Amino acid sequence: MDCIFCKIIAGEIPSTKVYEDERVLAFRDIAPMAPTHILVIPKEHIPSFAYINEENAPLVAHILAVAAKIAREEGLEEGGYRIVSNCGDDAGQTVKHLHFHILGGRKLTLEMA
Amino acid sequence: MDCIFCKIIAGEIPSTKVYEDERVLAFRDIAPMAPTHILVIPKEHIPSFAYINEENAPLVAHILAVAAKIAREEGLEEGGYRIVSNCGDDAGQTVKHLHFHILGGRKLTLEMA
Repeated sequence: MDCIFCKIIAGEIPSTKVYEDERVLAFRDIAPMAPTHILVIPKEHIPSFAYINEENAPLVAHILAVAAKIAREEGLEEGGYRIVSNCGDDAGQTVKHLHFHILGGRKLTLEMA
Repeated sequence: MDCIFCKIIAGEIPSTKVYEDERVLAFRDIAPMAPTHILVIPKEHIPSFAYINEENAPLVAHILAVAAKIAREEGLEEGGYRIVSNCGDDAGQTVKHLHFHILGGRKLTLEMA
């Protein structure tokens, strides 16, 4: 198991946890791109967004509902925030474990590509 | 009904459709930020990502499964792509109807905030 996020889930690598339940973990990005930068990931190893399908959709749905809840609790809802998932090389996906970024806390760039 | 996306769904405003089923519509962005730039939206009017909860999450999961399928059919899977949802003013959300951007077709900027 060479996946850094699987190691974070297993507690082998420390992280600043924001939320955890039996299916999902959220923690702060160690190289934040905005005042608030949180990653929300499934505990199940799904390699990327490209692997989302109607079968694992309920898990993905839960991830997104959790992301919206975290954004609210972090006080981002009034100002706003951005949800991003990078898939593959063109998008600069570094860790091959599905993750959704929550980015907020200031005006974000309008460039998103 | 002043929502431009609801008008697109109703066929009152034209769009370049990429995919449609009873719950979801996908069409090309009229001001593309990348060679491929598609918006995927629920037909139900959900104002933003902040309104995602455990109740409507199955619909949202379906949107994402459709987005992954579209990316595959558009030939983006090998190179990669980015999924973005902007929520509120700080993220520059212009249309107050939940939408997910699919962006790809070239190396994307690593700045995403």
